[in-house]
Amino acid sequence: MTETPPNYEILDEDILSCRLIEAQYGLRESRGKRNAKSLVILVSGIELAGKGEAVKELRGWVDPRFLKVKADPPYLFNAKKPFWLPYARFIPAEGQILVMFGNWYSDLLATAMHVSKPLDETLFDDYIENMRAFEQDLKNNHVDVIKVWFDLSWKSLQKRLDNMDASEQHFHRLHGLDWRNKKQYDNLQKLRQRFTQDWFVIDGEEEQLRNQQFAQYILQALQHMPNHVLNTRTPWPSAAIPEALLQPAQNKLDPINYKAELKSLSRKVADALRLDARNVVIVLEGMDASGKGGAIKRIVKKLDPREYDIHTISAPERYERRHPYLWRFWTKLEAERNITIFDRSWYGRVLVERIEGFAKAVEWQRSYAEINRFEKDLVNSQTVVIKFWLSISKEEQERRFKARQETPHKHFKITEEDWRNREKWDDYLQAAADMFEHTSTAYAPWYIIASDDKYTARIEILKAILKQLKAV
Amino acid sequence: MTETPPNYEILDEDILSCRLIEAQYGLRESRGKRNAKSLVILVSGIELAGKGEAVKELRGWVDPRFLKVKADPPYLFNAKKPFWLPYARFIPAEGQILVMFGNWYSDLLATAMHVSKPLDETLFDDYIENMRAFEQDLKNNHVDVIKVWFDLSWKSLQKRLDNMDASEQHFHRLHGLDWRNKKQYDNLQKLRQRFTQDWFVIDGEEEQLRNQQFAQYILQALQHMPNHVLNTRTPWPSAAIPEALLQPAQNKLDPINYKAELKSLSRKVADALRLDARNVVIVLEGMDASGKGGAIKRIVKKLDPREYDIHTISAPERYERRHPYLWRFWTKLEAERNITIFDRSWYGRVLVERIEGFAKAVEWQRSYAEINRFEKDLVNSQTVVIKFWLSISKEEQERRFKARQETPHKHFKITEEDWRNREKWDDYLQAAADMFEHTSTAYAPWYIIASDDKYTARIEILKAILKQLKAV
Repeated sequence: MTETPPNYEILDEDILSCRLIEAQYGLRESRGKRNAKSLVILVSGIELAGKGEAVKELRGWVDPRFLKVKADPPYLFNAKKPFWLPYARFIPAEGQILVMFGNWYSDLLATAMHVSKPLDETLFDDYIENMRAFEQDLKNNHVDVIKVWFDLSWKSLQKRLDNMDASEQHFHRLHGLDWRNKKQYDNLQKLRQRFTQDWFVIDGEEEQLRNQQFAQYILQALQHMPNHVLNTRTPWPSAAIPEALLQPAQNKLDPINYKAELKSLSRKVADALRLDARNVVIVLEGMDASGKGGAIKRIVKKLDPREYDIHTISAPERYERRHPYLWRFWTKLEAERNITIFDRSWYGRVLVERIEGFAKAVEWQRSYAEINRFEKDLVNSQTVVIKFWLSISKEEQERRFKARQETPHKHFKITEEDWRNREKWDDYLQAAADMFEHTSTAYAPWYIIASDDKYTARIEILKAILKQLKAV
Repeated sequence: MTETPPNYEILDEDILSCRLIEAQYGLRESRGKRNAKSLVILVSGIELAGKGEAVKELRGWVDPRFLKVKADPPYLFNAKKPFWLPYARFIPAEGQILVMFGNWYSDLLATAMHVSKPLDETLFDDYIENMRAFEQDLKNNHVDVIKVWFDLSWKSLQKRLDNMDASEQHFHRLHGLDWRNKKQYDNLQKLRQRFTQDWFVIDGEEEQLRNQQFAQYILQALQHMPNHVLNTRTPWPSAAIPEALLQPAQNKLDPINYKAELKSLSRKVADALRLDARNVVIVLEGMDASGKGGAIKRIVKKLDPREYDIHTISAPERYERRHPYLWRFWTKLEAERNITIFDRSWYGRVLVERIEGFAKAVEWQRSYAEINRFEKDLVNSQTVVIKFWLSISKEEQERRFKARQETPHKHFKITEEDWRNREKWDDYLQAAADMFEHTSTAYAPWYIIASDDKYTARIEILKAILKQLKAV
């Protein structure tokens, strides 16, 4: 998309409406197809510059049923929530259009203008950079994002405030800032110029031109169909497979020591988790039957069931597949819960989806950086991210599969698919190795846990949790 | 389910665990099958009676990944929200189990105990009755609900409070009431006895017995597979088809009068909607091409797009079909939005789903009462519900279909399916007639709008909105 306002001519309204509706239906028809997308329109600007009216006109020209509008009062940035969290759930599915009046930029402005603790400039610019990276991830994942700033001069703003009637004031009073205060106005203008370089800036002075510029810009965005390149010819450099995956250590713990250690450690872990003011996200990955479920049971052993959430991740549902890959994880972190455990996770993208070909090469290769950004956002929002790979040998897996088949209350846990996955053992090892190489970061390192002995593995996991809670 | 506590024996823990896991997997396996269900376990009781511990033990015996736990602080009843609204989104899909510590009963108790404005007794009992009806609707829609009260004598409670250690206090402090206050304790006991007749009451005195009673009760509930009768032999008494459907009035409005009336009425409607402190839900139903979209456009004409939501309802997604029929409408009313417009609605159950056989006879016949209760809950929560049937003649529909096919920006709006539906015209008339008969209530009446002339229809709809806003 071009970000410099083209010289729009005023179009006949019926023609404009016709084109918009056609483009809108085109977008809907594209659902499920290769280059399908959804469109998010971020709208911000000076009060009374006419954002509301421009969107109203647009909604009059398009089929209003397929253009959602979301308007939130600004959320002041909360140290424990990434900026995208309040909005993640509403990011539209392929084929849909959403206008967002309240958005991460208006939150940033509100936070920066907040009198009691204004935001420092470097932090402000960090946020901007972070927001742009997030939007780029959205675009790569079929969510086009366009941004429109409605501007208005101080003089015109004051004149419009003078002429406003009472019933309108009722609605406008909601938006916070004191628009009679020249200093606030200037400050806002100064701040927004730090980020509106890639926005379409519309002058709100002249009503008809404003509405047409807006609608025509949306029309362009609707007509612009992304051309996602999905296959890459660049050979993917394979990481060396760590010894800890090829030959998991064979330490054994006897049941008596295990019980004693477990008792004391699980109490310590519960206390540490409970008393930590931060959020904690624990991720468990590993081959089938590597002991993820058993480990989780011991992590939560001394916790009250009201204190944690466990999410068991399997293949995404159809409606989830119409959203960016990470969407279903974003939305799982909305709850006001301090402790969240993932039994498998977003790493499915670079494990099963890579190996089974559910994700194209470009998609899974790109996702390492997306995942790192996602986890960084969590860590920056006072979340401790602890990731485990439970490493078992192929022989041990076979023993466990057979044992499951023979144990009445466990034979549910073993299916044909498990045996099929086992045939791709080496591919999974390679994928895991690449995953460590690209996603073991200083802020969210991987712990590889030798798991042929379940007792040892559980104890090591508990110790690692304590370590990581103290580390950051 | 029996509601009197059976004489439970203490079972060997491994045997109990084995049975629970088997029952749990059985529940999961049933998904999508005829008698599939999900299970909601409401847990309430006296502080320190051991609810948390009993659920923790249970979670140790079952596969914890497939037993979700939800715990909310109590929501004091809000005059603008039905009691089920904060929980609706979390009601589990078929095959899933959810323990709810915070639930509508704990909210009711918290509201009733709230010192500044305690709840009157009749109102309390009304709520109970309403909650039971809601639970029955859930059960009929494959969500089994069981309720467990953990009780504890005043003496034991005081002893346990004396012995509590500091780290536990941190967690228990969350729950509101002053458990050292005998008057509050007695009041709570008195109140809860107004609703716990159909609860499983467990004495929290003896730990092992308590945990086993709870787990065994859950086991029973898991094993209990509903036997939904889906076909009825009782002939359905057809309602007479109103003349207004057979022969919509043919009044015509000329364009000049229309424009003038529209201008003044749409302004009045916008003001009335905006200034009304209540929520407003507007439902539009009618044959294809009866003018629902055009009418919606005129309803919102003078509103700011941030003031309303439009939901266009088509066939439910697969994940929605794993929930009670009304679930996808409950969840659409969560937003803090005053004005919500439905272009088609929950009435799909007794229209398209009835006619196409997507709902069985028992299901659509039962849903009249479910819908009435749903709308009543909305009305009781300060919501005005306004329902329109746009009545066109079969000839007019044909004219509009043909016009759509010939108009470039409208031919998207006409599909093969529309022509197929048209063949079932008489069935739809009968279904609409039955719908009016059973769901036109004093608190949410239907307005049948003669719609062969679009102008007249739009004006009548705007007038009806004004009328209904003043009526209640």
